[in-house]
This record gives sequence, structure tokens and C-alpha cells, in this order.
Amino acid sequence: MRMYDILTKKKLGQELSKEEIFFFVDGFTKGEIPDYQASALTMAICIQGMNDRETADLTMAMACSGDMADTSSLPETTADKHSTGGVGDKTSLIVIPLAAALGVTMAKMSGRGLGHTGGTVDKLESIPGFQTALAPRAFLDVVQKTGAAMVGQSGNFAPADKKLYALRDVTATVESIPLIASSIMSKKLAAGANHILLDVKVGSGAFMETREEALKLAQTMVEIGERSGKKTLALLTGMEQPLGFAIGNALEVQEAIKTLQGKGPRDLTELSLRLAAEIAGMTLGGNWQDWYKKGEEALQNGTAFLKFAEIVQAQSGDTDVLYHPEKFPAAGAKMEVLSPETGYLSAMDTKLCGIACVELGAGRQRKEDTIDLSAGILLRKKTGDFVSRGECLGEVYAANTQLCKKGAEILVSALSFQETPVLPPPLFLDRVSQNGTEPLDL
Amino acid sequence: MRMYDILTKKKLGQELSKEEIFFFVDGFTKGEIPDYQASALTMAICIQGMNDRETADLTMAMACSGDMADTSSLPETTADKHSTGGVGDKTSLIVIPLAAALGVTMAKMSGRGLGHTGGTVDKLESIPGFQTALAPRAFLDVVQKTGAAMVGQSGNFAPADKKLYALRDVTATVESIPLIASSIMSKKLAAGANHILLDVKVGSGAFMETREEALKLAQTMVEIGERSGKKTLALLTGMEQPLGFAIGNALEVQEAIKTLQGKGPRDLTELSLRLAAEIAGMTLGGNWQDWYKKGEEALQNGTAFLKFAEIVQAQSGDTDVLYHPEKFPAAGAKMEVLSPETGYLSAMDTKLCGIACVELGAGRQRKEDTIDLSAGILLRKKTGDFVSRGECLGEVYAANTQLCKKGAEILVSALSFQETPVLPPPLFLDRVSQNGTEPLDL
Repeated sequence: MRMYDILTKKKLGQELSKEEIFFFVDGFTKGEIPDYQASALTMAICIQGMNDRETADLTMAMACSGDMADTSSLPETTADKHSTGGVGDKTSLIVIPLAAALGVTMAKMSGRGLGHTGGTVDKLESIPGFQTALAPRAFLDVVQKTGAAMVGQSGNFAPADKKLYALRDVTATVESIPLIASSIMSKKLAAGANHILLDVKVGSGAFMETREEALKLAQTMVEIGERSGKKTLALLTGMEQPLGFAIGNALEVQEAIKTLQGKGPRDLTELSLRLAAEIAGMTLGGNWQDWYKKGEEALQNGTAFLKFAEIVQAQSGDTDVLYHPEKFPAAGAKMEVLSPETGYLSAMDTKLCGIACVELGAGRQRKEDTIDLSAGILLRKKTGDFVSRGECLGEVYAANTQLCKKGAEILVSALSFQETPVLPPPLFLDRVSQNGTEPLDL
Repeated sequence: MRMYDILTKKKLGQELSKEEIFFFVDGFTKGEIPDYQASALTMAICIQGMNDRETADLTMAMACSGDMADTSSLPETTADKHSTGGVGDKTSLIVIPLAAALGVTMAKMSGRGLGHTGGTVDKLESIPGFQTALAPRAFLDVVQKTGAAMVGQSGNFAPADKKLYALRDVTATVESIPLIASSIMSKKLAAGANHILLDVKVGSGAFMETREEALKLAQTMVEIGERSGKKTLALLTGMEQPLGFAIGNALEVQEAIKTLQGKGPRDLTELSLRLAAEIAGMTLGGNWQDWYKKGEEALQNGTAFLKFAEIVQAQSGDTDVLYHPEKFPAAGAKMEVLSPETGYLSAMDTKLCGIACVELGAGRQRKEDTIDLSAGILLRKKTGDFVSRGECLGEVYAANTQLCKKGAEILVSALSFQETPVLPPPLFLDRVSQNGTEPLDL
């Protein structure tokens, strides 16, 4: 088998065999296939595409390229949850303990934030002492003991994906449904859970800006999951404005705690409940509506919050801050952002809100950047709200006033106003399962 | 300017600006743009294409990437001739002295053979003493003194093309009209002649196997030439069977000499006359028909042959062999190839005839291979001829009997026979000038 022939086939838009895909992934991971051939192939895939069979094979080849988590000691019903990334998306912090409180075993591996989107691992690290780098054995121990654990990717999971992503990142071959889908799903397959819930974000703050693209990605990932023997479900949800009011690591954890205590923002609460209810339905059986009601009870009666506290303790975090939010790392400076106009807040360029947060110090431009866990934005207004000129739109937090100013300026530039009333953008869009796509009704 | 954005544009099928193309070629030549980005771009170009403007800019950027021949001391009417390569194509050896005998200044830079096609430089080197590696100054001296010179590419001409071609060769991105056209034309532009005649070969022995592809390549190259201020003309001619009867370096030179003496095979003579007549017409004015007649006279009255002898002498070659062909390097072994069937020779897989020649030792698989200048094939029969079983189809020449056997086997496998008469494939197909495409009538 020759890489040259594989390149020729994909250049001409032909289907690659399973053997050819494994040959490429294997050779590339070992360094036998050079970068210049791999980048030519990813470019050809970007333009010519891959069918579902090829995409599933690519995913499996990358999943098998390194360690595979041994989850044989966990229940058959163990679930994983993944969001394609957004701004203010702290649902994992809520959904993992909530679903665990409903009786689902949750083994969650998360990434760090990059670019305008945040990452669960960074958020968790704003809880003093919280350990996200657990060895595989310790990870499984926590899951078995508390029914849930939230860790960063440790070990050598899907190294082919890591290497290929780095190359795609510098050759303009990131935007490709088969490549994005296989990248996400290869890590999920290597992580070992039997049930996977995907939250595919759509809108100005998401990687997929149109519903059509997001739908295609969701369908592709569900197809990959099912072909690989995993029960997989995807929800398409809105990212036309930040989720909740908090953006930034410590700020988001505090909002997640409030939500777990039943006092969170409506959009964040509803989405978290729905995600947890779907996970419970797919793993334990029954319909999501019943689980949703049980989830509401778990938020109200404190069991969801207590499960979170239990996880924090099991992962060496300081549970004291959960009860005393003032003990979270505090920002060096804070500034109110005032409205430059009177009218209805008609749209938020959500990616730009995320970029404002990066400028405040809460995010990374490059992987090696360090971040300020206390920095971020607390919104007071969201799309649809009426504001008067000079009224407070929110607060920005950063290490110093200069950074606050810069972040505030970007935030203001992300907002649009109009004189006539406007509805908030929809949060629930579509539900994609192996049975097809249906509207995501509440 | 960022290579990332250039890649994104071409991935999406958008047009690249002149600045972007020069940025790429310049950065790649200097080693600032890595191979993995360049190969991703060539793959995107292969699939999405380039328009005439982009292709002309790519050509010029590559032509300017190294030395440019200083032809200011040569007449305005200096011409260059290029064939896209075929089997038994020794027309340059005839056309250069013939056009020079008609009064055109011919400054010809040629390449070496690779794969199933031969190269003019190798052929010339079968004349003892002949120097093809002249310094630019010596090259111009010969042109000024004799009106023509034939040399190999010396100096640092179009290094960007050299580097990019090497990368395309290992990333399956050779087959692309814009990339092939710019590769050929960048070297022609750097070589400096003001008039360019292109002989685009079509058929089983050519790089372009279909007339449609070849036409597109010819049109693209004429467009590039004219956009770059060079008068450019392309003829599409047949390569469905070897040209003439001789294939292999010393064998082809001997056939060229016979043709220059008016005793050559009909197809080779007609094509050489037409090419020389077109060159004379485009540089000196007048119609090709009149020049064709003058060319016939030059073959008959010996002036074309004498011009060739003059060039050989000016480039330190032994003119004695021109008059005594038995003094050419002789092969170690010779074998007759007998027909396995009785019938009409209906088709020749011309590429396979070329490969038979490589096996005999006359060509190269890789650039670093050495070749046997005396090896090759002398055909007795060509498409349309009737042969009886056991009749001689031709002779093969090689260093030993074993090689002869191998070459003969491949040659026989390249031939097809049928019971009913068959016409020879057409030699003259199309003529492409800046005024458009027309049938190439005799």
C-alpha cells in the first residue's frame, strides 16, 4: 500500500478503504508518513469529503492509535457528555453531578479552553486544590466511589488525533465535518463510556455558525458512535448569545453552583436539566420528561449540589469555597460596562464576547498561554432586554484597570441595539438520534 | 499576509491574488513556508483549479525565483521549442537546425529523460564529445556564431519549480493543468526567448492521454505565454505510436541525421517540417506553407544537415560520426523481435514501448540512474502495417542478451493485432494560438 495512491484516490473524490485509512493513521502516528503527505490528504478530505463509513473508520483508527481506557470495572450504563464548545458554557459542571444524582455513572474527560471558548478543566481548577490530572486508576476509583468524576485528558489518548489536529491547525484544514467529527469522537471512543451525549452548539459563539452545518456534524457524530457500538445522542442548542450570565473560569463555577442549588439563570438551568434528563433516559431507560422532573427535584432538594461537593472532595478540592463563594480567587480590578445606547439589545456577537474574555486574561490565544482564573465577564443584560443609555450592561473582571478597559471596549462592540422589541434567540433546536432528526421541544 | 489565509481561499475555490501567489512562491523557495503547507496548497489547486490569470502569475513567480537568461544580445526573433514529451520524439534534433537553416535564431534549453520519455540532452550526449553543459556566456556565443545552440538547463533557472515539482511528485499532485502548464512555462520564460513553439503530445505515449486534456494544457500555456509578453503557439500532435522508427538515444540521433538529409521516416519528416515552418512563420513572418516548402528544400539540398554539423562542432562534438554512423556507440547485444501473430498491427501501447526501452537500459526510472546510450528499439512495423507470424517487428539493442529478451517481451506485450485493415492514428490534431484553436491541417 502506498500513501501516493491514497492521495490520488481522495484527490479524485473516491472512497478510501478501511485498510487505507488505518494505513495512513498508523503510518502518520509512527512518523513514517511525512507531514507534507498528511496535510495534502487533509486538504483533499476538506474539499472532497468522506462518507459515513470512511469517517467512522478514521475515528476508530485514531481512537486505537494510543491508550484505550479500561472501563470494564464500571457499569454498562456509564455515560460521557461532550459540548462542541461555546461561550459561558458551564453545563458540564452542572450536568455531571446532576445526572450522577439521578443514578447515572458519569466518567467525564474534558479539555482546556482555546481561542474564544472555555474548557471545563480550567474552570474546575479555579476551585482551590481540585485535581484534574488523575491517573487512570485514580479516575476509576473516584467514579466508582462517587458515581462521577471530571478529569482532564491524561495518558496517551488518541495521539493520532493530537498530531493530526496540530497539522490541520496550520494548514487551514480544520473546517471539515468528517475531520471535526472524527477528532471529537476518537477521544470519546478512547475514553470508553458506552453512552455518549453530544451538545452541538450553533451560532455566532460556536464553531458551527449555521444550523445546517451543525446538523450535519451532529448526524455524522451520531452515525460514528452507533457504528462503533456506542449509544449516541446529539442535541443542537443555541449559541447566539452566551449561556447564563457568567463568562470566565471562577465566575462560571460560581454560576454553576447557584444553578445546582436551584437558583441559576433560566437558560442554563433548562439546558442542564434537559441534558441530564436525556442522559438518564438513554442509560437508565424511561422518557426524558420524567427524568427532567426528577432533575428539578434534585436541584431543589440539594442532592445535585451535594453530589458536586462529593466530587470536589474526592478530587481533593476545597469544598469550603462551594459554601463561601467569596473565597474564590478574586480579580485585581473590576469595571462596570455602561450601555452606549437606549433600546433593545438585539444581538450579541458571541465569539467577540469570548474574545473580550481572552483579552481580560480568562482565555488562551495559544496552548502555552497561562490564564487568569478570576478574570471574565458577568452580564446583566442579554438579547431581548431593554436598556437605557448609561445603564449597566455587566461587569468585567481582570488583573488591572487597563485590561478591564480593553475587554469592556470589545464587549460593547459585540452588542447591537434596536428600537423595536426583539425575541431572545432559541436555545433548543434539534435532537439527533440513530432514529433520525426531530425538533428539540421543551 | 498569511499562508493560512491563502490555503483557506484556495480550499474554498476562490481566486488568489498576484501578491498571494508571489508570497507563496517566494516564501516556499526561501524555505520560510514549510513543505506541509505547500503540499496542502498544491492539493487544493489540483482539485479547485486556477484561472488563467492565477496560472500566469504562478508561472511568472516561479520564472523569477532564480536566474533569468540575459538574451538581450540575441535578435528579437529568437525562438525556443518545447515538446511535452513522448516516445521516439527526436524532433528537437531536427527542428533546431532546420529552423536555424531557415534563418531563425534558436536558443534551446532541454532536459534529460525520465520515466518512459526520452530527453534531448541524453540524445545529444551520444555524439562523442558533445557538450550540453555550457555556461550562459558560452551558450550565447554559440547561438550568435551558428544561429542555434542546444544545451541542458544550467544555472539556477526557476528553482521554485524544481522544489515544487519534487514535492508534487510525492504528494500525488502532478496531474493538474495549471501546475503542469506553469512548470513548463516558468522554465521557458526564464530561458528568455521571445517566441515559443510548444508541441503538445496526445495519446498512449504522452503525459496527456486525451485530446481534451491536451487541448486545455495547450490553451493554458499559450495564454500564459501571451500574458507574459511572449509570442506563443502550440501544436497538438499524436503520440498513439512512437514517432519514426527509432527509440533510444544513439538510435534516435542517427534517425534524426537521416531525416536532416531528407531520408527520414515520413511522420517524423512531416512533423519536423511543420514545427520548423511554424517557428519561421511566427518569428520571421509569412505563412507556414511557404516555409514548409523552403524547409523541404533545406532537407534536400543539405543546408539543414550542415547547420546541425555546425552546431555539433560549435559544441565540441565529433562531427565524424555524423558521416559515419557506425562510429556511434554500439550496443553489446541485439535481438530480432518476431511477430507472434498474423494480421494488421492495430495499436501500440506507446508508454509500454517507452518502458521496454527503459528496461533495455536506454532510460531512467529515477533521476540518479545512469543510462546506456546505445540501447533502444528500431521498429520495422507500425500501426496499420500487415505482418505475418514470425515476421520481424523490429530489433532491440541492449548491453546483453538477457536485457534484450526482457525488453523484447515488453515490446511484444505493447502491440495489438487484428484481422481487418486499420488506419494509422492521426499525427496532426490541433493548432492553438492566441486567436483560438483550429484543426491542424497539412
